Amino acid sequence: MPNPTAAMLVIGDEILSGRTRDANMHHLAGQLTEAGITLAEVRIVSDDHDAIVAALNGLRGMWDTVFTSGGIGPTHDDITADAVAAAFAVTVDVRDDARALLAAHYAKTGSELNDARLRMARIPEGATLIDNPVSVAPGFTLGNVHVMAGVPQVFQAMVASVLPTLMGGAPLLSTSTRIDRGEGDIAGPLGKLASDYDDLSIGSYPFQKDGKFGANIVIRGQDRARLDEATARVAALFA
Amino acid sequence: MPNPTAAMLVIGDEILSGRTRDANMHHLAGQLTEAGITLAEVRIVSDDHDAIVAALNGLRGMWDTVFTSGGIGPTHDDITADAVAAAFAVTVDVRDDARALLAAHYAKTGSELNDARLRMARIPEGATLIDNPVSVAPGFTLGNVHVMAGVPQVFQAMVASVLPTLMGGAPLLSTSTRIDRGEGDIAGPLGKLASDYDDLSIGSYPFQKDGKFGANIVIRGQDRARLDEATARVAALFA
Repeated sequence: MPNPTAAMLVIGDEILSGRTRDANMHHLAGQLTEAGITLAEVRIVSDDHDAIVAALNGLRGMWDTVFTSGGIGPTHDDITADAVAAAFAVTVDVRDDARALLAAHYAKTGSELNDARLRMARIPEGATLIDNPVSVAPGFTLGNVHVMAGVPQVFQAMVASVLPTLMGGAPLLSTSTRIDRGEGDIAGPLGKLASDYDDLSIGSYPFQKDGKFGANIVIRGQDRARLDEATARVAALFA
Repeated sequence: MPNPTAAMLVIGDEILSGRTRDANMHHLAGQLTEAGITLAEVRIVSDDHDAIVAALNGLRGMWDTVFTSGGIGPTHDDITADAVAAAFAVTVDVRDDARALLAAHYAKTGSELNDARLRMARIPEGATLIDNPVSVAPGFTLGNVHVMAGVPQVFQAMVASVLPTLMGGAPLLSTSTRIDRGEGDIAGPLGKLASDYDDLSIGSYPFQKDGKFGANIVIRGQDRARLDEATARVAALFA
């Protein structure tokens, strides 16, 4: 049975402008691979209501699960909760359970639960909350969509909360074999070998170092014996 | 007049699996911002023909220019040229000018121009070549789509070849102001200030460091005087 699939929607002007280099996508990709869930597509859109709604509706119909990051804080550019509600055509408002979490937290820290902070308790109708052990303001799950914060520490904590609730497949195993020859020399024999192993994914990732070309041959699959056999054949082929 | 828009399509199993952390997107984002072109959307899809065709056809109709990275080498998993041709419904075959570039290069380096390497001369009908000063095998431009290599050194060289041919807008200027208070404290006044400057984009990017919360307020726009005025007001507001 093929592994379940996932997509990620990054809501991030700061990544599109080049100001910030993505960290959350890289983290989620590694976690999903370990859990046996195939990350099939990522989209990055700007902090724009219509763009978020369109991307989310595209992705949630196409893949088993969607993770979003970003745009659930207290400032004027935090519009993800409203966009998710619009995508699902449900209402969104401050919800008592989320408000109670925030009220308890800010009472303890001595900060005021002002209108801005209350925005973080706006939860679309029908969603369940995602625990945020770092800074309390919750994420939420609606249908097959998990809505999480953009701050990396909070994002990672929310991923850790959500992942155990998902059914994964067999973990995806991989090997990587470095070949110090140009891809043009190895492509022919490698292509033939790949056709013998259509239960595995065999990728060639070229690199250039000190003016020399080489490639890392990455083989991925769920059957350790098949993986080892194919890896040994790659090594023998280009020894 | 609003700046021209661009999108990027990353063809990359290695990024979706978490094996590699993206570098090309971050590079392109910075270059486009400098050139006054708005990177509006990024999609990352796997090395899958149908996924590439669907994403490309989605993006090229939506944005002024599309850049792709990855999948134009000589190995069996390099399927981008065929997918781009399919998206545009044109034929693709080894083309004489691209073959001549490769033949001259491999004659000089003493490598054989074998069938695998010849795959890199497969160019969709009607495309123009993109110069590759690093490793010769060209990228290509078809309609509003620029197809480039995934190896970062080659990708960057191709971006440098293509960018001067594009019409940019006024360069996007930005300022960043670090505020050592939680977003919940600054969101209210910041939102009011943002509504006074709807010609600027004002974003709040929260961070957490040593257990304390803060935010970088990034203001972007094309008018230096307006930008400086808004930045001074932000600094004064939270001094």
